[in-house]
Amino acid sequence: MVVTRRNEVATRGQGDAHDVTDLVVSAVAESQLSGGIATVFVVGSTAAVTTIEFEPGAVADLNRVFEALAPRAGEYRHHLRWGDDNGSSHVRAALLGPSLTVPFAERKLALGAWQQIMLLEMDTRPRRREIVVQIVGE
Amino acid sequence: MVVTRRNEVATRGQGDAHDVTDLVVSAVAESQLSGGIATVFVVGSTAAVTTIEFEPGAVADLNRVFEALAPRAGEYRHHLRWGDDNGSSHVRAALLGPSLTVPFAERKLALGAWQQIMLLEMDTRPRRREIVVQIVGE
Amino acid sequence: MVVTRRNEVATRGQGDAHDVTDLVVSAVAESQLSGGIATVFVVGSTAAVTTIEFEPGAVADLNRVFEALAPRAGEYRHHLRWGDDNGSSHVRAALLGPSLTVPFAERKLALGAWQQIMLLEMDTRPRRREIVVQIVGE
Repeated sequence: MVVTRRNEVATRGQGDAHDVTDLVVSAVAESQLSGGIATVFVVGSTAAVTTIEFEPGAVADLNRVFEALAPRAGEYRHHLRWGDDNGSSHVRAALLGPSLTVPFAERKLALGAWQQIMLLEMDTRPRRREIVVQIVGE
Repeated sequence: MVVTRRNEVATRGQGDAHDVTDLVVSAVAESQLSGGIATVFVVGSTAAVTTIEFEPGAVADLNRVFEALAPRAGEYRHHLRWGDDNGSSHVRAALLGPSLTVPFAERKLALGAWQQIMLLEMDTRPRRREIVVQIVGE
Repeated sequence: MVVTRRNEVATRGQGDAHDVTDLVVSAVAESQLSGGIATVFVVGSTAAVTTIEFEPGAVADLNRVFEALAPRAGEYRHHLRWGDDNGSSHVRAALLGPSLTVPFAERKLALGAWQQIMLLEMDTRPRRREIVVQIVGE
């Protein structure tokens, strides 16, 4: 069986992080499925999804590493194409990836106690993000 | 239901990028399934899959960051083992990862308008890559 | 159909790598399913999963790049929160990601001959890791 749940999250620009674990927990609960996998997918090429201990320090540390890897104020060939300023966003989002798949059994996701599912905005401006949670199970 | 589709893509060496979105779109269409997930997996340890706005600038920006992270001409312990020259390929491919899972509903993949599925060759020589698209749905 | 298999792996601290391919191969075999996907998920926010040619040189090369990206002895805001010393672990694990999905068909995983599934410990101390292998197929 397949159950699709779409959610919208408003973000405030590059580095803005959202704990979306509860969206996934409630999608699993509403699906009434006992076991399977939940795929979390962010629509668009300038945001990404991963897991982290969701506290401001760890999120800031991750953002600092991304700033070193792909500085926001750096020069990007992507900027030459459209006059955009978000070359750093595309690089960061492609590296981290738009999707994550988490198993669940007996209606419970296999997350650790200090492991949350995070949407990380990479774009340089606020966005409304669509998060698709796709549950496949039985 | 599960539907498997295998595809072959010829690549031209490190940094060569291919938009494989159409392979996944047509695999979903041929599966006749209405909703589910499509897993895109590249066979081998020196290539990777992600999503990106597939235009030459953004792809070049991503490759430049990989070249800074794991320079092609750098020294790698992997080279000592086999006399290979592709230590940078292994590091880059492991970082980006070989697989991506994309939901679909009403026969339509949940991709953004500017979000394509990309195969990124990391090896230092041309390869024939096998891409497995595995559709699981109903 | 869904089959869940949980495994425990004892690790020796940051950079310790384990080839967990056989766990996944045997979970597929025991599931008796012919085709589908196997999701490999590590519970916790300081370890990660990817594929690599599992030989000590390639693993060391990857760890060296992580040490450059997020040095173990660096300063992390995460340390200020709990007095932890594993800020580098959180950054590395979030970047690489906790999960991987591999297709299988005719009971055989779609891995290359030199492509193994690796658990990479990122934490600064030994851990007992739970690896969930979730098989969804038919």
